Amino acid sequence: MHRRDAADPLRPFRARFALPDGIRYFDGNSLGALPVDTAAGIARTVTEEWGQGLVRSWNDADWIGAPQRVGAKIARLIGAQTHEVLVADSTSANLYKLLVAAVRARPGRRVILTEPGNFPTDLYIAQGVADLLPGIEVRSVPRERIADAIDATTAVLMLTHVHYKSGARFDMAALTRRAHDHGALALWDLSHSTGAVALDLRADQVDLAVGCGYKYLNGGPGAPAFLYVAEHLQATLSSPLTGWMGHAAGFRFEDDYAPAPGVSRFLCGTPPILGLSALETGVDLMLEADRAALFAKSEALTTLFIALVEQRCAGHGLALATPRDPAARGSHVSLRHAEAHAIMQALIARGVIGDFRAPDILRFGFTPLYVGYADVWHGVDILRDVLQTGEWRQARFQQRAAVT
Amino acid sequence: MHRRDAADPLRPFRARFALPDGIRYFDGNSLGALPVDTAAGIARTVTEEWGQGLVRSWNDADWIGAPQRVGAKIARLIGAQTHEVLVADSTSANLYKLLVAAVRARPGRRVILTEPGNFPTDLYIAQGVADLLPGIEVRSVPRERIADAIDATTAVLMLTHVHYKSGARFDMAALTRRAHDHGALALWDLSHSTGAVALDLRADQVDLAVGCGYKYLNGGPGAPAFLYVAEHLQATLSSPLTGWMGHAAGFRFEDDYAPAPGVSRFLCGTPPILGLSALETGVDLMLEADRAALFAKSEALTTLFIALVEQRCAGHGLALATPRDPAARGSHVSLRHAEAHAIMQALIARGVIGDFRAPDILRFGFTPLYVGYADVWHGVDILRDVLQTGEWRQARFQQRAAVT
Repeated sequence: MHRRDAADPLRPFRARFALPDGIRYFDGNSLGALPVDTAAGIARTVTEEWGQGLVRSWNDADWIGAPQRVGAKIARLIGAQTHEVLVADSTSANLYKLLVAAVRARPGRRVILTEPGNFPTDLYIAQGVADLLPGIEVRSVPRERIADAIDATTAVLMLTHVHYKSGARFDMAALTRRAHDHGALALWDLSHSTGAVALDLRADQVDLAVGCGYKYLNGGPGAPAFLYVAEHLQATLSSPLTGWMGHAAGFRFEDDYAPAPGVSRFLCGTPPILGLSALETGVDLMLEADRAALFAKSEALTTLFIALVEQRCAGHGLALATPRDPAARGSHVSLRHAEAHAIMQALIARGVIGDFRAPDILRFGFTPLYVGYADVWHGVDILRDVLQTGEWRQARFQQRAAVT
Repeated sequence: MHRRDAADPLRPFRARFALPDGIRYFDGNSLGALPVDTAAGIARTVTEEWGQGLVRSWNDADWIGAPQRVGAKIARLIGAQTHEVLVADSTSANLYKLLVAAVRARPGRRVILTEPGNFPTDLYIAQGVADLLPGIEVRSVPRERIADAIDATTAVLMLTHVHYKSGARFDMAALTRRAHDHGALALWDLSHSTGAVALDLRADQVDLAVGCGYKYLNGGPGAPAFLYVAEHLQATLSSPLTGWMGHAAGFRFEDDYAPAPGVSRFLCGTPPILGLSALETGVDLMLEADRAALFAKSEALTTLFIALVEQRCAGHGLALATPRDPAARGSHVSLRHAEAHAIMQALIARGVIGDFRAPDILRFGFTPLYVGYADVWHGVDILRDVLQTGEWRQARFQQRAAVT
């Protein structure tokens, strides 16, 4: 075993994942790997809770409490209070709910402020909100000028903490403070941060946040997402998606909507129990790990990768697209290359799975729970091989979908 | 075996469900039972597609095509064209998307027309839309007067085809025609109809519909829901939830939203693959059954139940709350009783699972795929016992949640 893997306090977690043989997986920032416990957990949910318990399991297996229960666990990963987080819907739908709520909580302010190149669904959802609500507009300002663009017209600052492509990390505390200084709310997308970098939403006084369940939380493909609403805002914000699960007394079957107290008002439809079951297993596993060790390893893996690529792959046209300062990035590293798509396809054919992001990005994610130092060495070796042999030129690969 | 079960062409389907021993399950209209194939299907999705395929399964296992693929299968159950249906989000969220789209497609008309006592989430979602969009209001008119209430102010008629409590079924064709006569759109909630009664959305010229995956489709707890948009409306309607999966070219990661052609624009976030996998197994199983036999058996079971209750449970204060005409009801039957809650708890303790709906309804669902005629006899026997012995008086049962 590689010396640093042998010394890695997180090394035992690798055996808790069902990784395929012969694969180096650097795409946990897109879809996290399968925890070993998840198959048994889902089987229990399906066979025992659903099959045997049937409708009684809404109570007996506490299905009905799953959105808050799993939310409370995620809260511990992001520095929130347990009653500030819940699991529901998709990241996109949660963003919509919170964005509409934020805009309505700041009447007279017209701007949703964001950056160009933010993750597409964030931009699309914001555009949809602006299209729906009279007078609201989306303003996209390059990140280096965004602090100065916050002003009295800003209703909500909506940013993704760690950029899905570059991996660049915003200063969440400083920008949130800046938003508050101008009376605006701050809404952060934590999809590429949660479980990857240290987060402290309370200390940073974050108002609102959303995040993804299927990346570093290893919740499975299309896992339900989470949302966070700071305690002091919960009583005044209202969801536009006023479904029965967000009602103050949903099972009284009354005709008139009344929002539940607290963050639960941001629930909408019936909770997706299979997805919640898998997500809970993934979150439980992450909670077993020492968080300081986790984030230190993220930093160490990304730092090692950058150093090895620069040492061993020089002269092949690769350019680092991710900040060099570890405090200014997440747990993935992107490299720019004109033939990025063909190169990534050649890497995947050799068992090194990262992904391609248009137009020219090779993206490599380093999930500290299951990626080892030897994996990084091996991945860079294969990358060098692929570049030196030029095998990516021969291969004919189709461009296909892959979910962020 | 009961004579009628022996003659039932659908009887073989009973063995395709993993029903617990000693239970008579009359709550498939709340949560459908577990198909035997589902456990293996989910295990394959988890272990092989996710565990081994990892992110590659978005393409290799066609995860990315699941919303349209499963939607096309559901289309066959509701008399829609395959490209008019997709699976996404929850019933509540889909209702929101279509309701906002409908209201925006009828500018100048201010009314969402519905009935009091419609399923709560339908009313709440409509109230949320009215609260968000200036000038829009929800008008609730008792069902016997609803046809006359449709007028030039009506933007959209929003009704649930089979009522969740009474089981009463609207004349979908007639009311849709009436809506069209006045220039309004018709949006139907098919949650208690799909897989339970014959549906022909094309013939009835239905504009928009939503429906639930976890009832008669046996898709599992909190299964993703479906939505239907008639072909001729697809190009002009737009979703307020403009997530990346509904983008014309979501994987180009462009900054500007552009709706996908067709019904796919009503997708929002990343598809919930575990839920879709279970739902697909449930729908596949239902597609194996002869639809005429299915709906004939729904009618026969509910008719038998009503007859037996009236013959064998007379004098105990039960009143039929469901229409006697089979064409005017769905596949569940409700009985009114002042002590409905305690009686249902006593029935459940005896292994007869129906549910209680406030304030005074005992609800029994008859899923034709797995409920048999002997089950109906047995269920009524136990009901008679519970009423005769008065055992419900002794029991102290807690009122708890149960998801419609």
